Amino acid sequence: MNLTGKALIAQGGGPTAVINQSLVGAVLEARKYNQITKVYGAIKGIEGILDEDFIDLSQETFYNLERVAKTPSSALLSTRIKPNEKNCKEIVEIFKKHNIRYFFYIGGNDSSDTISIINDYAKEHEYELKAIHIPKTIDNDLVHNDHTPGFASAASFVAQTFLGVNLDMRALGGVYIGIIMGRHAGFLTAAASIAMKYPDDGPHLIYIPERGFSVTKFLKDVEDVYNKYGRCVIAVSEGIQDSNGTPIVTKLMKKIEKDAHGNVQLSGNGALGDMLADLIKQKLNISRVRADTLGYLQRSFAGCVSIVDQQEAREVGERAVQFAICNEEGGSVTIERVGDYSVDYVLKPLHMIAGLTKHMPDEYINEAGNHVTESFKYYIRPLLGFDFPEIHLLRAPKVNGVLVDQI
Amino acid sequence: MNLTGKALIAQGGGPTAVINQSLVGAVLEARKYNQITKVYGAIKGIEGILDEDFIDLSQETFYNLERVAKTPSSALLSTRIKPNEKNCKEIVEIFKKHNIRYFFYIGGNDSSDTISIINDYAKEHEYELKAIHIPKTIDNDLVHNDHTPGFASAASFVAQTFLGVNLDMRALGGVYIGIIMGRHAGFLTAAASIAMKYPDDGPHLIYIPERGFSVTKFLKDVEDVYNKYGRCVIAVSEGIQDSNGTPIVTKLMKKIEKDAHGNVQLSGNGALGDMLADLIKQKLNISRVRADTLGYLQRSFAGCVSIVDQQEAREVGERAVQFAICNEEGGSVTIERVGDYSVDYVLKPLHMIAGLTKHMPDEYINEAGNHVTESFKYYIRPLLGFDFPEIHLLRAPKVNGVLVDQI
Repeated sequence: MNLTGKALIAQGGGPTAVINQSLVGAVLEARKYNQITKVYGAIKGIEGILDEDFIDLSQETFYNLERVAKTPSSALLSTRIKPNEKNCKEIVEIFKKHNIRYFFYIGGNDSSDTISIINDYAKEHEYELKAIHIPKTIDNDLVHNDHTPGFASAASFVAQTFLGVNLDMRALGGVYIGIIMGRHAGFLTAAASIAMKYPDDGPHLIYIPERGFSVTKFLKDVEDVYNKYGRCVIAVSEGIQDSNGTPIVTKLMKKIEKDAHGNVQLSGNGALGDMLADLIKQKLNISRVRADTLGYLQRSFAGCVSIVDQQEAREVGERAVQFAICNEEGGSVTIERVGDYSVDYVLKPLHMIAGLTKHMPDEYINEAGNHVTESFKYYIRPLLGFDFPEIHLLRAPKVNGVLVDQI
Repeated sequence: MNLTGKALIAQGGGPTAVINQSLVGAVLEARKYNQITKVYGAIKGIEGILDEDFIDLSQETFYNLERVAKTPSSALLSTRIKPNEKNCKEIVEIFKKHNIRYFFYIGGNDSSDTISIINDYAKEHEYELKAIHIPKTIDNDLVHNDHTPGFASAASFVAQTFLGVNLDMRALGGVYIGIIMGRHAGFLTAAASIAMKYPDDGPHLIYIPERGFSVTKFLKDVEDVYNKYGRCVIAVSEGIQDSNGTPIVTKLMKKIEKDAHGNVQLSGNGALGDMLADLIKQKLNISRVRADTLGYLQRSFAGCVSIVDQQEAREVGERAVQFAICNEEGGSVTIERVGDYSVDYVLKPLHMIAGLTKHMPDEYINEAGNHVTESFKYYIRPLLGFDFPEIHLLRAPKVNGVLVDQI
């Protein structure tokens, strides 16, 4: 194992609250090995590589790295660029020029695709390179992963949002709709279910992309809950689709915005929530209907980080370097659940992960397709850590209205 | 001081993260005095009084009260009802029937108005009553208060939102608009300024209701910041008005929703943010423009509570009971800043507070009317507590692109 050269680390795609834990885990581990002569960071992912915009992370203090690890959002900045054939050629030329032999890319599905393309190109052109994909995504949609770093912190934010909103709607009544990220996977939306403590707590309804969304069924569901409780709290995924697989949000937008990976912009406006709220106001004649789109708050909120997520994000970064040093081949670091609760990290071939999307399995979705099962709650609970806030209601006895005890 | 009878506590208006601290402060303090024979809670504020829907808080464990204190949103539930003459008569009849002699109402401007109306009616009809208003509002708009319980926790949520979003926009670029609560006062929106650490950090622009909002000036401001930094993070109050004092949001909505106090619904949809985002896309030709409406998340988020806020909310509840026992007259408990940082509580006549709105003073607003001054930051910083999260950027040196150090 004597492949000697520099290591290059970059971050791609949307940020998470713990993505810098993975960065720092990889940097600190990489600085331990003689084979790795220097540790570079590329600014803005693939863009920074193409521009040779590197910083020398061998010259960053341990103290500052530890502080950056606790800072949300990509410290090396990010991109949504997808490299084409010409870019790959340029990238390998730049790697050669700097003798970069270890390449770590922290990202989600699209970033795993990117690293896979670069890895294939390097192999084809006989440039010896260890390319490792370090997973992150709040969407939790990487295949062959029990869950992904970044998901648990975003899930904790979503669950805490619904914890508060539940109580708010309990106090003032009405219908509340929260629109949640997650693209085509329902995991993050389903995390709202952790807010349920008392039997009448919301979210009373949960709509995810894994089940076709029907306006008629939605209105019937809301009406039933509202008639029962005098309020209705609803978690809706930004990615809900009609029975033909067309995202509901695309039907609402004048101009569809797409990134280089062909992803439609689902977040960043209130259209979906407002449409659903208007529908309820009009069809069900309920006056107090509120919709919030959780938007960019949920993916890099400094004060809402799962300790478990933090630790695992650190470990995937560390393990990525260990795999690069100890394995012949590159690959993608994946998380396997090996105990209740414990995880282990396994290196999988890049093509097994790249560009694929994991969806919520059927066992986590209720029969009516408008909520989760207990099995999902059992799956997600340990990821949120032991310090998830608890709420408590008053339970003092009711006073008899009739005057019996006047003093 | 021998007015003997029951105490009744209720909560009105929008919830906060610490409103139950005030409730529990008042309940525990009230349970200490022989003059107070029992402590009742009214369910849903004024509605619960009119319906005689009371619970006996003398029969609630200390342990559960302490847990409820840490739970956000009104544990006694809430209302936006404003009592009319007929209601006042009924309320005083019910007070008589139950021998309720101490009345504590936790709420904002509208609730202080409510308690003032009831107090005046009782006095007029010679029913001896100690009516005390306990302040709360995330809007921070109660006159004669340095700040109000609930504000600091919401401010911390807003500041943490911008802490994360700043980093997110630094990583991926573009324009971000966050729409913040606060009605006609800019304090909560201005709290976003605490997210600024590095010189190029946002929010780069802050728009509050205290300054007339001009679309032309707004677009010019955004363009200037975007040209300078390649990104622009903007905090906008839900209550921004044009130069005639017409809220911008009311111009956008088909149907204006008002509560019993005549307040227009400003939150609960994404209209204002989406309108401003579309404006920037169209007029400035910037493609990545995102808008989030912080909505109901900001007022009862369990995991984002200022310790200072928690303690002060508890104290105003305690002091309310002490004032009721030791003073001849009822009134409104206010917070005065007496040190840096220390506060004291002063009982003010109800008519000095009731129904009035405090605005951001000029000294907190910059000359251009699109940001805050250092003076505002100095004012708000101690309210957020010592555990407000810190962020850190990498500061490793840039690598020379030219091949000088290949190994």
